[in-house]
Amino acid sequence: MLRRDYETQVCSIARALELVGERWTLLILRNVFLGVRRFDDLQSQLGIARNVLATRLERLVDNGVLERHPYGERRVRHEYRLTDKGRALWPVLVELMQWGDHYSPTPGGPPTVLRHEGCGGFMGPHRTCTRCGALLEFDDVRAEVGPGASPEHPLRTREYARA
Amino acid sequence: MLRRDYETQVCSIARALELVGERWTLLILRNVFLGVRRFDDLQSQLGIARNVLATRLERLVDNGVLERHPYGERRVRHEYRLTDKGRALWPVLVELMQWGDHYSPTPGGPPTVLRHEGCGGFMGPHRTCTRCGALLEFDDVRAEVGPGASPEHPLRTREYARA
Repeated sequence: MLRRDYETQVCSIARALELVGERWTLLILRNVFLGVRRFDDLQSQLGIARNVLATRLERLVDNGVLERHPYGERRVRHEYRLTDKGRALWPVLVELMQWGDHYSPTPGGPPTVLRHEGCGGFMGPHRTCTRCGALLEFDDVRAEVGPGASPEHPLRTREYARA
Repeated sequence: MLRRDYETQVCSIARALELVGERWTLLILRNVFLGVRRFDDLQSQLGIARNVLATRLERLVDNGVLERHPYGERRVRHEYRLTDKGRALWPVLVELMQWGDHYSPTPGGPPTVLRHEGCGGFMGPHRTCTRCGALLEFDDVRAEVGPGASPEHPLRTREYARA
C-alpha cells in the first residue's frame, strides 16, 4: 500500500518512508537498537500480532535493514541484527526521540536517556555530547532507563544495555 | 488507529510517531518546509485525496505542528505554516532524506540538495556543513533542486527557495 502510494514522489524522504514508514516498523527497529533481537521478545514487548511482526521483519530483511542469525541448540531459531544500512537509521530514531521528549513528554520524564559512554554527558542537539561536545555515533552512546520509564521498559526487563 | 495501537508503548519515539507517523504526514510537512503552504498546492503536488489531506492538516493544526493563516481577498482561504514545534521536526526530515539519498538513491542523483547559505558547503552528517563544519540549523540552509529531481519538484514549479 505504502509503496504504491508514494511511488509518484521522486524524493529521498518518500523512498525512506516506503521502507520504514509502515506502522510499527520504527518501533521494531527501536527495540532491536536496544538489544531486543528475538521474535518472541519483540512480540511480547510490542504487543502486536505475530503475523504483523513477521511481515515487518521479513520486509526489513528483504531490504537489507536487518539480518537473520540462527541461534538455539535443540531447534534452530533466529534473531535479528542490524546491518550497516539498518544502523544508519539510528539518527532518525534519536531525532524522533528527542522531539518526542520535548514536545510530547511523558509525565515522569524521558523513558530513555542516552549518555556519552565514558564521558557521562548526555545526547544533545545534532547528536553532540552536552558535556564534551563530541559528535556522537551509535557506538559512543549508552541507553539508560530514564525517570519516565514503565516497568516494561526493554532495558529493565533484560540486560539490554547498549543503545 | 495509530494512536490506539501505540498507546501501550511508554516511549518518546512512539509518542512522536503517534503524531507524525501517519501515512503522508511527513511528506506534507516536507512540502511545507519547502514553502508549499496552500491546500490546493499541497493537494496537487502530493496527488492524494482531498479528504485525506484535510484530515492530516487538521490533526497537525490541532496538535500545534502547523498554524492556519488567512490569505486571499475575494474570499478568505488559508495557508499552513510551521510552528516552533513543527519546525523542530526538521532534523527528522533531514536524517530521513540523507538515509534515503544514501541507501535508496534516485537514478539521477539526489532530488534535493541542502546547502549552507553563504558558505556554499553541503549538508553533512550530524547536520554539519561539509565545508566549514558549522552546526546547521533550518535558517542556515537553502534547499536546491538536485540532479535527480523530477519536473514536478516543488522547487521547480514555484519559487520555493528556502529549506
